[in-house]
Amino acid sequence: MPQDVDQRTLQLIEQIAKRVQRDIEQGSLPVLEFPVRSLSNVEYDADTGYFALGDVSKSRTLNANTVRAFAQTLRLMAIARTMVAQDDFATKREAYYVSKNWGECRFDSQDESDAIMDDIEALASRHGLFREQLRFYPESHGGAVAGELVVLDTDSHSGSLMEIDCRGFGSGAYSIPRSVEQLDFRTEAAFVLAIETGGMFQRLNSHRFWRQANCILVEMGGVPTRATRRFIRRVSDARDLPVYCFVDCDPYGFANIYRTLKVGSGNAAHLNRFFCVPRARFLGVTPQDIADYGLEDATHPLTKTDIKRAQDALAHDPFFAAHPAWVAAITQLLSMGVRAEQQALAKWGLNYVMEEYLPRKLADEAGFLP
Amino acid sequence: MPQDVDQRTLQLIEQIAKRVQRDIEQGSLPVLEFPVRSLSNVEYDADTGYFALGDVSKSRTLNANTVRAFAQTLRLMAIARTMVAQDDFATKREAYYVSKNWGECRFDSQDESDAIMDDIEALASRHGLFREQLRFYPESHGGAVAGELVVLDTDSHSGSLMEIDCRGFGSGAYSIPRSVEQLDFRTEAAFVLAIETGGMFQRLNSHRFWRQANCILVEMGGVPTRATRRFIRRVSDARDLPVYCFVDCDPYGFANIYRTLKVGSGNAAHLNRFFCVPRARFLGVTPQDIADYGLEDATHPLTKTDIKRAQDALAHDPFFAAHPAWVAAITQLLSMGVRAEQQALAKWGLNYVMEEYLPRKLADEAGFLP
Repeated sequence: MPQDVDQRTLQLIEQIAKRVQRDIEQGSLPVLEFPVRSLSNVEYDADTGYFALGDVSKSRTLNANTVRAFAQTLRLMAIARTMVAQDDFATKREAYYVSKNWGECRFDSQDESDAIMDDIEALASRHGLFREQLRFYPESHGGAVAGELVVLDTDSHSGSLMEIDCRGFGSGAYSIPRSVEQLDFRTEAAFVLAIETGGMFQRLNSHRFWRQANCILVEMGGVPTRATRRFIRRVSDARDLPVYCFVDCDPYGFANIYRTLKVGSGNAAHLNRFFCVPRARFLGVTPQDIADYGLEDATHPLTKTDIKRAQDALAHDPFFAAHPAWVAAITQLLSMGVRAEQQALAKWGLNYVMEEYLPRKLADEAGFLP
Repeated sequence: MPQDVDQRTLQLIEQIAKRVQRDIEQGSLPVLEFPVRSLSNVEYDADTGYFALGDVSKSRTLNANTVRAFAQTLRLMAIARTMVAQDDFATKREAYYVSKNWGECRFDSQDESDAIMDDIEALASRHGLFREQLRFYPESHGGAVAGELVVLDTDSHSGSLMEIDCRGFGSGAYSIPRSVEQLDFRTEAAFVLAIETGGMFQRLNSHRFWRQANCILVEMGGVPTRATRRFIRRVSDARDLPVYCFVDCDPYGFANIYRTLKVGSGNAAHLNRFFCVPRARFLGVTPQDIADYGLEDATHPLTKTDIKRAQDALAHDPFFAAHPAWVAAITQLLSMGVRAEQQALAKWGLNYVMEEYLPRKLADEAGFLP
């Protein structure tokens, strides 16, 4: 983790702890303030391009009802402080288990520790910090990476710089760690291609599509994890790279995978500013591609869930509502009544996707959905 | 893929095709023979240490009822032949889509293509070949690898040798490709440590446990995928390395994760000879560890599913039945009524697992469960 971030993290924790201590010493009840995390306190900001947390806060004053949660909050923050000082980390699950020797204020379930961690993260987000910087890591790791990118990392023991060349993994790939804040990047790539399925990633990697197209391949494996989103965001920011998404043509691909990557989600608005990728654009597969590339007989009927998800996106999602091109595309999908997976291109031959589809799409970046 | 394997694959396909052609030219109905894949044709072989396919076969004679499946089988085998010749591959999903321009004999769903692919794989297994060698790859990729291992791969375009040093990925890791047949290995490690959760893998990797213990870390991420199992097996075979499993202390960890890795599964018996890891042993977490390491208050009650799974293992699973130590351990777990996750060791501090638990366990390898 960069040292200045660690300094800010320590300062925030100590500042909150000192305020609590001062209140107690002055004989008044200490108060902790957290942003309200419900959807009522979320706004879609068309300028920044993501859902953002509003200004509403809730207070937790120490009393008989709150004493347990109050103590748990302070202890979790104390663990974060120790981990920053010792350059260590805990998964959310480990943090739950660490509490097992806290006696009366141990967590009974991980739901409890997760909720308090979310409060702490929401609070930290007001100071430009997020959970990984407090050293609480998610269970799930990131996707895989291959192509025109050198990742710069530091050996945790020797402190020496490590250069990880993502062109050098053969048929394998670089697996993104749970936290990517310590990484830096060197690349001459023209763009990042974020791919939904592992199978398609393997195809493009095995055939060295990244060399042909001068790009970085990232396997998302469905809805991208926090680490994958943050990795793509940091690569994009560090080298000012556009990000193109290549996912299935279905409401899940649009509203869950792509939308989450680009603008984040409503129920975790406090972290979108760090994790969303505003520069992401939708390469395909689009509803129009089904017609343009003759995929009609390689489609599947929309399920009830698909239809509901598409209708919800049209009716309730401010991101799609803000983009007429998306409204038109989702409406077109509903009227076609079918969905198409990215693998459907295999109908024209296994490598049609590399030889025809992607080159034609990449020649018209202006035509990508926003 | 090694060239001699490719030669054997091509020979098998051509031999079957020629027999069909000869039958037709002689005016008799062609027949394809496949091993029966149901549990009735499966045996647990205590010597080899895995479930193996028996000798019972089923015939598919060409007639009005079988003509579609017959044609589909031959076309899938033709695709395999082309892929071997062109050094390409298809995921199971892609193979399904490729059929979409086969007219009348296209697959209606992936269930159909998977079933026929399983037949072909079972047949190939009698000749020492499996699906990846026919170039049909699974969707799911393997886990992550870090530590004292150099993977040798070949650049698919230039043909030049690539050395992938799994000590060199910082906080990240090597992501196992979908097929690992083309890989070779160089290592001085003493053992492979196969780890259930990504969080524990990240901890051991971040703190360079692999350097301290001179080992190779493999993240299984729950029940290991085909690629992960085959990767561990090939590393173990190539360098005669023992494999130690570090998973949760619960019936799922024993009967699903560990048992699948070590002896394979009953409903895919035709591939166990290639994918199981007979040298695997169970390091922990064991029921006795819960007492020995004071984890009682970091456990969770066994669920109904846990109890049923444990009872099934005792009553019906020939692997556990063959090992009194396992029968005793599962009986002990049932009488304790609780399960413990590997992260529960965090109760004693985040790095207790590296500083205390694993060194103590590794000092007594003879005590591992079989």
